[in-house]
Amino acid sequence: MAEKHVYRFGFDQDGNNVSEVAGATVDEAKWITGGKGANLAEMAALGLPVPSGFTITCQTCVAYSNAGNVWPEGVLDEIDEYRKDLEDRMGKKLGDADDRSGAPFSMPGMMDTVLNLGLNDDSVQGLIKQTDNPRFAYDSYRRFVQMFSSVVMGVSGQLFEDAISAKKAEKGVKLDTELDADDLKDLVATFKQIFADNVDVAKYPEVEVDGKAVFPHDPILQLRLAEQAVFGSWNTERAILYRKQNKIDDSLGTAVNVQVMAFGNKGNTSATGVAFTRNPADGTNERYGDFLVNAQGEDVVAGIRNTEPIADLPQVPGLEDAGNELFHVFEILEDHYADMMDLEFTIEQGKLYMLQTRVGKRTALSALKVAIQMYEEGRITKEQAVMRVAPEQLDQLLHPQFDAADIKGREVVAKGLNASPGAAVGAVVFSSEDAVAYAAEGKQCILVRWETTPDDLPGMDAADGILTSHGGKTSHAAVIARGMGEPCVCGVEALQIDAPNKVCTIAGTDIALHEGDVISIDGTTGNVYLGEAKLVRPELGGDLQTILEWADEIRFNEDRGRVMGVRANADNPDDAQLSRDNGAVGIGLCRTEHMFLGERKYLIQNFILADDPAVKADALAKLGEAQKGDFLGMFKAMEGLPVIVRLLDPPLHEFLDSPRELEVEIAKLEAASKALEAAASVDDSLTQVNEELETAIAVKAALLKQLDSFQEANPMLGTRGCRLGFLYPELNHMQFKAIASAAAELIKEGVDAKPEIMIPLVAFSEELKHLRRMCEADIAAVEAEYGVKLEIPIGTMIELPRAAITADHIAKYADFYSFGTNDLTQTCLGFSRDDVESSFLDTYMNEKLIKTNPFATLDRGVARLVQMGVEGGKSTNPNLTCGVCGETGGDPDSIQKYYDLGLDYVSCSPFRVPIARLAAAQAKINSNGGAQTVAPRV
Amino acid sequence: MAEKHVYRFGFDQDGNNVSEVAGATVDEAKWITGGKGANLAEMAALGLPVPSGFTITCQTCVAYSNAGNVWPEGVLDEIDEYRKDLEDRMGKKLGDADDRSGAPFSMPGMMDTVLNLGLNDDSVQGLIKQTDNPRFAYDSYRRFVQMFSSVVMGVSGQLFEDAISAKKAEKGVKLDTELDADDLKDLVATFKQIFADNVDVAKYPEVEVDGKAVFPHDPILQLRLAEQAVFGSWNTERAILYRKQNKIDDSLGTAVNVQVMAFGNKGNTSATGVAFTRNPADGTNERYGDFLVNAQGEDVVAGIRNTEPIADLPQVPGLEDAGNELFHVFEILEDHYADMMDLEFTIEQGKLYMLQTRVGKRTALSALKVAIQMYEEGRITKEQAVMRVAPEQLDQLLHPQFDAADIKGREVVAKGLNASPGAAVGAVVFSSEDAVAYAAEGKQCILVRWETTPDDLPGMDAADGILTSHGGKTSHAAVIARGMGEPCVCGVEALQIDAPNKVCTIAGTDIALHEGDVISIDGTTGNVYLGEAKLVRPELGGDLQTILEWADEIRFNEDRGRVMGVRANADNPDDAQLSRDNGAVGIGLCRTEHMFLGERKYLIQNFILADDPAVKADALAKLGEAQKGDFLGMFKAMEGLPVIVRLLDPPLHEFLDSPRELEVEIAKLEAASKALEAAASVDDSLTQVNEELETAIAVKAALLKQLDSFQEANPMLGTRGCRLGFLYPELNHMQFKAIASAAAELIKEGVDAKPEIMIPLVAFSEELKHLRRMCEADIAAVEAEYGVKLEIPIGTMIELPRAAITADHIAKYADFYSFGTNDLTQTCLGFSRDDVESSFLDTYMNEKLIKTNPFATLDRGVARLVQMGVEGGKSTNPNLTCGVCGETGGDPDSIQKYYDLGLDYVSCSPFRVPIARLAAAQAKINSNGGAQTVAPRV
Repeated sequence: MAEKHVYRFGFDQDGNNVSEVAGATVDEAKWITGGKGANLAEMAALGLPVPSGFTITCQTCVAYSNAGNVWPEGVLDEIDEYRKDLEDRMGKKLGDADDRSGAPFSMPGMMDTVLNLGLNDDSVQGLIKQTDNPRFAYDSYRRFVQMFSSVVMGVSGQLFEDAISAKKAEKGVKLDTELDADDLKDLVATFKQIFADNVDVAKYPEVEVDGKAVFPHDPILQLRLAEQAVFGSWNTERAILYRKQNKIDDSLGTAVNVQVMAFGNKGNTSATGVAFTRNPADGTNERYGDFLVNAQGEDVVAGIRNTEPIADLPQVPGLEDAGNELFHVFEILEDHYADMMDLEFTIEQGKLYMLQTRVGKRTALSALKVAIQMYEEGRITKEQAVMRVAPEQLDQLLHPQFDAADIKGREVVAKGLNASPGAAVGAVVFSSEDAVAYAAEGKQCILVRWETTPDDLPGMDAADGILTSHGGKTSHAAVIARGMGEPCVCGVEALQIDAPNKVCTIAGTDIALHEGDVISIDGTTGNVYLGEAKLVRPELGGDLQTILEWADEIRFNEDRGRVMGVRANADNPDDAQLSRDNGAVGIGLCRTEHMFLGERKYLIQNFILADDPAVKADALAKLGEAQKGDFLGMFKAMEGLPVIVRLLDPPLHEFLDSPRELEVEIAKLEAASKALEAAASVDDSLTQVNEELETAIAVKAALLKQLDSFQEANPMLGTRGCRLGFLYPELNHMQFKAIASAAAELIKEGVDAKPEIMIPLVAFSEELKHLRRMCEADIAAVEAEYGVKLEIPIGTMIELPRAAITADHIAKYADFYSFGTNDLTQTCLGFSRDDVESSFLDTYMNEKLIKTNPFATLDRGVARLVQMGVEGGKSTNPNLTCGVCGETGGDPDSIQKYYDLGLDYVSCSPFRVPIARLAAAQAKINSNGGAQTVAPRV
Repeated sequence: MAEKHVYRFGFDQDGNNVSEVAGATVDEAKWITGGKGANLAEMAALGLPVPSGFTITCQTCVAYSNAGNVWPEGVLDEIDEYRKDLEDRMGKKLGDADDRSGAPFSMPGMMDTVLNLGLNDDSVQGLIKQTDNPRFAYDSYRRFVQMFSSVVMGVSGQLFEDAISAKKAEKGVKLDTELDADDLKDLVATFKQIFADNVDVAKYPEVEVDGKAVFPHDPILQLRLAEQAVFGSWNTERAILYRKQNKIDDSLGTAVNVQVMAFGNKGNTSATGVAFTRNPADGTNERYGDFLVNAQGEDVVAGIRNTEPIADLPQVPGLEDAGNELFHVFEILEDHYADMMDLEFTIEQGKLYMLQTRVGKRTALSALKVAIQMYEEGRITKEQAVMRVAPEQLDQLLHPQFDAADIKGREVVAKGLNASPGAAVGAVVFSSEDAVAYAAEGKQCILVRWETTPDDLPGMDAADGILTSHGGKTSHAAVIARGMGEPCVCGVEALQIDAPNKVCTIAGTDIALHEGDVISIDGTTGNVYLGEAKLVRPELGGDLQTILEWADEIRFNEDRGRVMGVRANADNPDDAQLSRDNGAVGIGLCRTEHMFLGERKYLIQNFILADDPAVKADALAKLGEAQKGDFLGMFKAMEGLPVIVRLLDPPLHEFLDSPRELEVEIAKLEAASKALEAAASVDDSLTQVNEELETAIAVKAALLKQLDSFQEANPMLGTRGCRLGFLYPELNHMQFKAIASAAAELIKEGVDAKPEIMIPLVAFSEELKHLRRMCEADIAAVEAEYGVKLEIPIGTMIELPRAAITADHIAKYADFYSFGTNDLTQTCLGFSRDDVESSFLDTYMNEKLIKTNPFATLDRGVARLVQMGVEGGKSTNPNLTCGVCGETGGDPDSIQKYYDLGLDYVSCSPFRVPIARLAAAQAKINSNGGAQTVAPRV
């Protein structure tokens, strides 16, 4: 059968629905006839008053686009048939037709619409005769010329607005509505001249007459050009950008809908409006929307006139019946779609026409409330309710926001990347230490840094928000801030920071911010404001809790499918408690290096750098004590739940100062010494000073040599992870014993501590074999010391391709695998997370070489490695537990993949646990036959 | 059937061979009874005069070792049976037995031997009676006590040597042979006392009598302790180290051979010796070896007395028959083994005994000659001849060496890693520029550097050898030197280099080398000598050529199996010519970044750093011209053969100066400026100077900012490879056009230029799709310009795990794949090649976490990626050519794997091409049923 390019919708002359259905369900049909077309046919089937028409398919658009904007063979004939069919059904010729567009994805404001198509100098007379309303007819005509010229022919819309303004000035009036029929007739002529002056006949030879552009009077030609414009609009920059932002595939195409025009501007018993069946902002079950009397659709959106609330529609004289019918339509739509709907309508001389409907977009707050209402009303099941809330949306509810009214009036003084959501207010501070000091005094502060480093962790934790001038959405600041659930604006290029002098300026302004000056930052938008903006924490009610409980109910139901747990990444007792409060069933990753910072940093530095073995040993012992304390707190907070502790992972130089800075410092001291030497020849007393200086230089030079010896060209591929344990076995022993003895102490107290030990960066099974043996010996020693039996599973991160590839070997020595997708992505793709944001990732996204940031959403190649890892690991060790603890562990798209890859749990930031719980429930539903629906009533 | 632990060899009382054969062939048997035991049984089967005995298997050794040096159940009984059987066969009791060891791998000097076992105060009397030669008997006895004490009981051998020296001093004689029977009898007593004083009875309770150690008189106990010592020796440090160096698996174990003693010290018709059936040094078909009259085996090796050449043996009175019989044995052995054999023999009172034979170790020169001779003699086929030469050995022949006699007398003043084989002599220079200057004047030089960088390439090329104080065998210097075939000694820690002052010193000596001082370095041994050592280029004759021709004959024979080509990595016309001369059938990798160095470096710097677009464009145009010139030379040199040109690969900062150095320089200038400022307040004229200085500082500060903007935390995972082409498309266009226009120009001249273009570091198929399109457009433009048709295949490096994993997708846009195993190993294992040598690799090798350096020999995980790449690629593009161009492409072990993985070619350094040709032929033979043997005579 030849491909069908056009589908009919609406009614025949007897009012029977004659829509051709493009799919078994409206969801299926929308891939062919687009969201709008499919829903028009669906509404016709429901008997709702849809103006009849036909739809040219999305696939036709793609074929047209791919052929370089050329119609596929036979399609024009097919369209012509359907046009004639529509004329037959209506009993009138084109000249009353209307042309609209739609796509399988609802793209509000993206695809262009042309109203009043078919009008020309002749048919406008017909319209006058038919309505006896010349003003209406010319208003429609001038709208058509204007819309056709700008939308279809690409003439600047401003030219027409200017002409209208000129006309109003000439007439001394202010509103469009004050122009009369003659004025509008004049405008039609003016508009046609604008058309003639601005259309390039080389581009549009169809409108050429004697070498000049003439506004086309032939309705068939008008239709053809309009159809081509809609299909052409699929590849406008604006549409491409929108699709990129919304991850819509370019290959979908858009449909063209041609339907009979309903005039909402045919006098005071005509109207037009948009509405939602419930409140999309907060989910209240009330009619929501606006209408305008005697107007066409674009007037409502344009905001030229003040609209009326939809609830008042039945009160307008002459619109009573249509209004009540509309509200009845609300019910029919909700009954049919079992969701909150968004719709457009027009009333032409008292008769209601439904122009569009679709599932209404809504806030997170509304999504939760509507889903629960719909379940309570018996329209949907709990599973459907759970599927109705987009996990990503919850982020809105989990962080404080600026008060909308307050923030509206404030100037955005700088803009950066929206790196970690939520809003924060505080005094500007320029160092980690100052942030800690402010916090200690109970003052709120924003840490402002060029970029952050692990050194800044205490300050980042103490601050209320983070602002950096460099780095992208996966920079250190961004990643850590998201992990902490703290607002962060990154990469504010205008920010010029002079940290030593505790001041920063904003390029292009005369603003200088000194320490203590209060600013407000919005990590959800990337905006920076001066002064203290008003913060609000959205009212959650119990809706979020309810939906999450339903999600868990589904997630833990073994009869419904495989169970996937949600754990959290946390490094201290507070975060562990928060994780538990947010519903995590364990800690998937505790990064012990985070316990080596702040006041403890000098200890690890002593361990690394000290020549004296006693100093080294002392430093190590103190680190062990300190870590044990942390573990006691964490294991207690997570009593009865597993806590995976990862051994020290980063290369040691991350704990050391920068050799470059030190070398510059030495150069400066040497210059000073040289100057002193010269002066000492005059002033003898300076000799002593210089000798001291020279000693200091020698000490620093020795230190520099040491620092350099720890440098690596490619630290990510260097001496880190389990490799450290072979070079510095004492570090391992210290950590093994700190973990085991904290557990032993708690168990003796009756606390059910459940630590698990994770060895990072394993590439060879031999590594794990050796370290496991070492670990088991240390645990045995602790067992003997405390007289308790410990059961501490030992596992490894799978974060190198080789580990995934040889997972069958490694699993012989592992109780669990945790896929470290950050590192795995780095090595699999050869992207450095430390560099990629500032280098080529943007270019790659723009050139569409990649669709998503592979550090945020699991890459296909990395997914294959995870698959090899799970399959290989379970093949030799069926009891192996497999989880993931990378950034992607909290990403809904990735969670779906992890469910399908058979992971036992995902682990993410404590703040994302609710998101992950919902996403995991949805993944399970998706992968087990989709959501159960309400049983048909018997 | 219970496991058999002991095998019999030798003869019964009637002289019939009663050996128990442990395998179908001697090669099979040696895995059970060890190399020595298997060959003893084999010789017995040939009717050769082997002293009878039995062998305890290697598997017994492993079981003994694994059980913590405890005998497996029943084995002691089994051994006892065989001992009794041997006593029965000989018609005499233990007391004449001898105990020797062997392993499946011949380990000369590694496993310990105990002669004369069974002697005690009683049996020595028997020996005297039997021989009427008390001196012989006591000589044997004192040898036994000495050997047993040191080898079996671990007493320091020096104590016995000291006692002998004392005895000689007491007697006023110089030679051992001058001691008479009484002296030797005294020594036996002294030796027993040394035993008593030095053996720890806690460790050896078997020899305890009344709390003291007493030399064991019981022959059965002697035997048991000796057997345990041999098995125990498998795990001595020396043996472990040897196995590590020779890649011998620890799980093989060693066998113990117990055989009847043949005395070579029974007077002047007795003798002992070692021999080869041909000359192992140069392959001449002559008898080769030494003997000693009236001596035991260890005397020959110890060098106490001067040995006689084996050819003279039949001339010695009383040894005529045994000598002629020995030469007849040579022929029997060569006929049987069809190889040059190494053997040990003893003549006891005119009767010949064969103690050992094995395939003789030989130099490369000898290996070639013997293989060819054996073929010509009809003993082996060409395939066997090709299998007889170890590819790695050829390296000896391909580089100049020091004259052995000359170098023997020279002091090794420093020692480093033998990073690139061959010897070199030249004047010391400390910079690349100086090396180039020396070379320009025709002077030989050695480039001495802390470490080399890509900056040093011109100097490395100009120098005759390279010496560095840092870096390992895979450091930049080592890799590049091997690529250049230039001798290199790396990581000489004693070297203290002061490059600015052009001097270096050697720690622990008072040697200071100034520029121009002549030194000699040996990249084969890592030795450094002062002055000019004599260089020789070994005489190759045509043997190498012959074997390589045979190898190629096999390699290109399609009936014999799949053909795998050998190409070379070369970046300039000279290397291309050398590659061709060495038998390469194409260039597998031309690294274009090597064309950006030396005088051209400022051009690429201008391109990167210049703000002025005109300067940028000009730099690019000049680079294009220069590259085109290089390509013309290379394509011409390789006429008719493919030349794969890789686009620019390294991150751009590799072409830029170090920001750290610049920052230090700025700090110094700022200090100078500050000083000047102070001085200017006194001397006004200095103000001008200081202003100029400040300007210079500002310029440098701006440059520093630029340099920093190109820095990356992890350059290997950064902005490099094809990623550059998306950020700087003009670089790609320049290179595409330079390649295509060079080819076009040559084709017009009638030269068959065959370039192929390789896109590096592809991770996503979309990258290759885009760049291929770009490249094709540029080629088309060149075709139009020159009016010629170009056929330039376009392919990619597979050097990231993701590329290998998604090879099926990428292959849709690739004509060929070249596996870049250097990068693939880095990312698969998470090892940085730039760092790994100086960090944990050594530890890993020592701890046996890994067996070989994964950058030198293909790692198993990486091999799996290569397999995925080949299979995936060919699944969607059956015409895809697959090769490898990493370091491993020239490694024989890896070449075997590449053959089995189905690669179409390997590419390596031009100097390794002969090695790779031979290795590839051997791989083909191995993977296709093994070498054909000589047809049995009809």
